[in-house]
Amino acid sequence: LDYQHVQVPFEITLWIMLASLAKIGFHLYNKLPSVVPESCLLIFVGLIMGGIIYGLNDKSPPVMDSDIFFLYLLPPIVLDAGYFMPSRPFFENIGTILLYAVVGTIWNVFGIGFSLYGICQVKAFHLQDVSLLHNLLFGSLIAAVDPVAVLAVFEEIHVNEKLHILVFGESLLNDAVTVVLYKLFRSFCEMPTIKSVDVFAGVGKFFVVGLGGVLVGLTFGMTAAFTTRFTKDIRVIEPLFVFLYSYLSYLTAEMFHLSGIVAIIACAMGMKRYVEANISLKSHTTVKYFMKMWSSVSDTLIFIFLGVSTIGENHEWNWPYICFTVIFCLIWRALGVLVLTFFVNRFHVNTITSKDQFIIAYGGLRGAICFSLVFLLPDFHRKKLFIAATTVVILFTVFVQGMTIRPLVDLLAVKRKRESAPTVGEQIHIRFLDHLLAGIEDISGHWGQYYWKDKLEYFNSKYLQKILLREYDQPKSSIVLLYEKLERKHAIELAEAGQLGHAPSHPSLLCSGFLCSNNDRTVITDKKLEDTLNPDVLENIQEILARNLYRIRRTGPAYNRHTLPGETEPVEHAKEILILRHKSL
Amino acid sequence: LDYQHVQVPFEITLWIMLASLAKIGFHLYNKLPSVVPESCLLIFVGLIMGGIIYGLNDKSPPVMDSDIFFLYLLPPIVLDAGYFMPSRPFFENIGTILLYAVVGTIWNVFGIGFSLYGICQVKAFHLQDVSLLHNLLFGSLIAAVDPVAVLAVFEEIHVNEKLHILVFGESLLNDAVTVVLYKLFRSFCEMPTIKSVDVFAGVGKFFVVGLGGVLVGLTFGMTAAFTTRFTKDIRVIEPLFVFLYSYLSYLTAEMFHLSGIVAIIACAMGMKRYVEANISLKSHTTVKYFMKMWSSVSDTLIFIFLGVSTIGENHEWNWPYICFTVIFCLIWRALGVLVLTFFVNRFHVNTITSKDQFIIAYGGLRGAICFSLVFLLPDFHRKKLFIAATTVVILFTVFVQGMTIRPLVDLLAVKRKRESAPTVGEQIHIRFLDHLLAGIEDISGHWGQYYWKDKLEYFNSKYLQKILLREYDQPKSSIVLLYEKLERKHAIELAEAGQLGHAPSHPSLLCSGFLCSNNDRTVITDKKLEDTLNPDVLENIQEILARNLYRIRRTGPAYNRHTLPGETEPVEHAKEILILRHKSL
Repeated sequence: LDYQHVQVPFEITLWIMLASLAKIGFHLYNKLPSVVPESCLLIFVGLIMGGIIYGLNDKSPPVMDSDIFFLYLLPPIVLDAGYFMPSRPFFENIGTILLYAVVGTIWNVFGIGFSLYGICQVKAFHLQDVSLLHNLLFGSLIAAVDPVAVLAVFEEIHVNEKLHILVFGESLLNDAVTVVLYKLFRSFCEMPTIKSVDVFAGVGKFFVVGLGGVLVGLTFGMTAAFTTRFTKDIRVIEPLFVFLYSYLSYLTAEMFHLSGIVAIIACAMGMKRYVEANISLKSHTTVKYFMKMWSSVSDTLIFIFLGVSTIGENHEWNWPYICFTVIFCLIWRALGVLVLTFFVNRFHVNTITSKDQFIIAYGGLRGAICFSLVFLLPDFHRKKLFIAATTVVILFTVFVQGMTIRPLVDLLAVKRKRESAPTVGEQIHIRFLDHLLAGIEDISGHWGQYYWKDKLEYFNSKYLQKILLREYDQPKSSIVLLYEKLERKHAIELAEAGQLGHAPSHPSLLCSGFLCSNNDRTVITDKKLEDTLNPDVLENIQEILARNLYRIRRTGPAYNRHTLPGETEPVEHAKEILILRHKSL
Repeated sequence: LDYQHVQVPFEITLWIMLASLAKIGFHLYNKLPSVVPESCLLIFVGLIMGGIIYGLNDKSPPVMDSDIFFLYLLPPIVLDAGYFMPSRPFFENIGTILLYAVVGTIWNVFGIGFSLYGICQVKAFHLQDVSLLHNLLFGSLIAAVDPVAVLAVFEEIHVNEKLHILVFGESLLNDAVTVVLYKLFRSFCEMPTIKSVDVFAGVGKFFVVGLGGVLVGLTFGMTAAFTTRFTKDIRVIEPLFVFLYSYLSYLTAEMFHLSGIVAIIACAMGMKRYVEANISLKSHTTVKYFMKMWSSVSDTLIFIFLGVSTIGENHEWNWPYICFTVIFCLIWRALGVLVLTFFVNRFHVNTITSKDQFIIAYGGLRGAICFSLVFLLPDFHRKKLFIAATTVVILFTVFVQGMTIRPLVDLLAVKRKRESAPTVGEQIHIRFLDHLLAGIEDISGHWGQYYWKDKLEYFNSKYLQKILLREYDQPKSSIVLLYEKLERKHAIELAEAGQLGHAPSHPSLLCSGFLCSNNDRTVITDKKLEDTLNPDVLENIQEILARNLYRIRRTGPAYNRHTLPGETEPVEHAKEILILRHKSL
C-alpha cells in the first residue's frame, strides 16, 4: 500500500465526493430542502464530521485554509454569479447597489466597531484590553454581507428580481470596501502612530481597488472574447478559455491587492455576450453546465468546511461580547438600510417598499468570507474571541435568518419573481421605451442611464463587435431567439392538436410572434397577415429572420481528435427544419 | 505586488493558457497540422521554450515531475480513451490485443535488454559497467508503446478501425506489463541476490496487477452507474460523478500498485452505457465535451513539457549506446509483430495483412510514460545515459515515424476507416448474425466470444440494468437512435424540397428507416407499407418506437439553483415535434 504517493489528489477527490453525495442525499428526501436551506444542512453535516474527527483524534479538526478558500473555492462561485448575472436589473439599480455596498458597508463597519468599543468599556465584561482599532478591524470583517450565503438562500426563495439584485449585488460589490478597510485597519494595528495622511490614502485606495478590479476584469474579458474568435477549428478547447481568463483576472487582481471578486465579475459580464456569440452551442452548454457544477461543488465544500472548522478549541467564549456582536450586526444593518433607502426613494419613482427593506435588512447573511478573514488576522491575545464571535454570527445568520426568511417572505407576501419569460410584445415595448428615453435624455441634456446605455450600445456595435466577434454582422437579438422558441412551441402545439398535417403552411407564427403576446395569440391566416403588414415590411422582416436563423450545415471529416465523434448538432438540424419550412412558402 | 500568494495557481493557469494558445496558433494555419502531427509541433514549442529558459537562467529548465505526470496529466487522457473506446472492435480483437500487449511487450523488453547488454560487452564502446539488470530495466521502460503518442498520431491518419484498435489497445493494456517488469527489475537492482522464487513471484504479480486493475475499475464503474440513478433532482452535479469515480479508480489502483491505466479504462468502459442512460442529455454533452477538452489540454501540456525537459544538462551522450537503442527498438518490434501475427493469422479467418503488420510495427511510438519512468529510476552513475537514450528514442519515434506514417499510409494504400455510420440494414444484420453465431456456438458446445457475449448480455439485462438504471425498462437501442436521426434527416430533405406542406403525413420514414438502406431509399406510401408488413407487426413496431422516443416534457420551477436557468431542452422539443407527428396519424 502506497498511500503517501496519492494522498493529496485522493483526499481532495474524496472530499468532493462526500460533498456531492451529501447533496444527493438531501434531494432524495424532497421535504427536507423545502424547509431547511441546503446551506444549513451542509453546515450540519460539517459539524457532525468535525465532531467525529474531534472525537477520534482528540484534537481540533483542521480549519479551512484561508488560502484554499480565496484561491480555489471562492472564484468558481463568483464566476458563476457574474456570468449568470441578469445585466438589465443590475445596471438599472447600479446606483442603489453601490450605495448599499459602499456607504452601507462603511456605515456598518464603523457602527459595529464603535458600539462594540462602547461595550468593551463596561468594566463588568472584562473586555477593556480590546482597543478601538481592534474593534474596527473586527467590524470591517464582520460587516460585509457574504455572496455565497446570500446566493444559497435567495436562490431558493424566489423573491422579485429587483430585491434579489439589490441584496446580491451589494454582497458582491462590497468586497472592494471590505478589502480596503480590512487591510487598512490591519496595517493601522501594526503601526505605532497613525497620521491623517494614512487615512486619506485609505480613502483614495478604495477607488483604486474597486475601479482597478473592474479594469483588470474588463481587460481579461475582452481578451477572452478576442481569443474565442479563433477557436473555430478546435471547438473542444473553447470552454477552457472562459474559465482560464476569468481565473487569471481574479488572480491578477489579487496579486495587485485589488478586489478579485469585482474583477472576475467584470470579466464574466464583459465577455459573456461576445463569447456566447463566438463559441458553438455545445461549447456554451458545457460552459454553463460546468460553471454551475463547479460553483455548486465549491459552495457545498465551503459550507461543509465551515461546519468542520467550527468544532475545536479555537474559541474564547465571552457572553456579552458575542451577544452584542449579533445584536449590533442586526441593528446597524437595519438602520443602514432604512436611512439609505430613505435617500434612494427620494430620487426614484419606482420606490423600495417597506417590505422589501425588511427583507434587504434581514437577508444580510454572513458567511465564509468573514470566517476566512478572521483566521487571517495577525496573532494577538483576543483573536480567539473574535473567531468565536464570527462563528456565532455566521451560524446565527445562516441558521436563524436563513431558515425563517422563507416563511417571512410568504407571510409578508413579498412580490415574487415572475415565472414566465417576457413576451415579444413586452420585449419590443421595453426596447422601444429605452430608445425613447435615451432620446428624451439626449434632448434634455441629462446624462442619465439611458443616455449612457445608448452610447455604450453604439460603441459596442461600431467597434467592439467588429473586433471581438467572428461573424459580427449577424448579431442574434433576443427577439430572434424568442422567435425561434415560439416557432418550436407552436409546432408542438399544432402537432399535439393533430393539425400539422392539415394546416402546416400558414406562417401564422411569424405574425403571432411579432404582433400578439404569447398568451392570447390569435391565429392570423396568410390573407389577413398580408393585409395587416405592408408587404415590403413583411419581406424585410422575413429576410432579417432568415438571415439570422439560417446556418449552413458544416460537413466535417468523420473523425477528428479535436472534435466529438459523429453527428452534426441535432439542435441545428431542428432549427433548420423549422426555418426552411418558412423559406419554402 | 504579492506574487508569492498566487504563484501556484497563476503559473498552472498560464501554462495551460500557453498550451491552448499554441494549439489555436497551429490551427490558424491549416497547412501545418496536415503535414506535421500536432505532437511534433508541441514538442517543438517546448524545445524553444526550454531553450529560452536555459538561455535566460543559464541552468537546466525544470523537468516534468513524474508525480504530476502520473497523477494529473495521464488520467484525463486515459479516461477519454476508455470512455470513447469503440467496444465492439475492442472486444472482437481482445485476444490479439492482449497477445501484442503482454507477449509482445515482454519480447521487446528482453530483446532490447539482452541485445543492449551485448553491445555493452564491446570494449571500444566503454560501456562495460552497465550490467545486464540495468539493461533489462532500461528495456522495460523503453519497450512499451505509449498511448498518448499513439493516440496523437493515429487519430489524425484515419486508418481502419481494426488496425487502430490493435495499436491503440496494445498501447493501453501493456501498462500492466510495464508496471510489473519495471518494478521487478528495479527491486532486483537493489537486491543483493536474486532467487528463482522472486522470478516466479514476478510472473504471478503480473496477473494480480492486470486483473486487479480491471476489478478495481469495474467496482468503481458500477458504483458510479449506481450513483447516477439518484441524481435526477440535481442534474448539475451529474457530470462530476463520472470524473470523480474514474479518477478514484485510477488513484486506488495506483495506491495498491495495480495498473491505474487498466483500472480507469475498465471503469470508463463499464460505466459508460449505464451512466449515459441515467444522466440528462445536457449532462452527457458536458461529460463528453469536458473529457475531450481535458484530455486535449493534458496531452498538449505533456508534449510541451516533453520539449522543455529535453533541453538541459541531464544527458550523457554515448553514440553507440544511443544509436543501437533506436535500432533495437525498431528491429525487435518489427520481429515481434511478424512472429506474433504469424500465430494470430493461423487462428483467424480475417487475417492481418502484411501492410497492416508494417503499420503496427511502425506505429510503435514511445512517449511521455517512458520519459517519466526514466526520471523515476534510482540514482546510479549511468542514469544520465539512460535519460539521453530515452529522449532520443522518443524524439525519433515522434518526429521521424510520426511524420512519415501518414505518407506511408497513403503510399501503401492501407485500408481506411469508413466515413459513414452503418445503415439500419447493416445494424440489423450484424445483430442477427451475432445471435446466430451465439446459437451455433451454444449448440456445438464451443465457448467462443459470441457465447460469452450472449451470456453477458443476458446477465446485464437480467440483473445489472435493474440495479443500475433509473428506468431500466426503456433501453434505447441503437436502432431507435438511428430512427430518430433518419426521421430528422428526412424532415430536412422534405423541407429542402419544399414538400413539407404538401405531403407531411405519410410515415414513409418508418419503413424506409427499417427496410431500406440509407443511400437507396425509396419512398413507400402508406398503402404499400401496409401491404408489405403484417398490421400486427407494424403496430408493434410503432408502439415500441413511440414508447422509446416519447418523453414527457418536464415543467420545473422557473428558477432553481441546481439547474440551469430557463427553457426546456430544444432537442427534446424537436424530437417531440417529430414523434408526435407520427402519433397524430
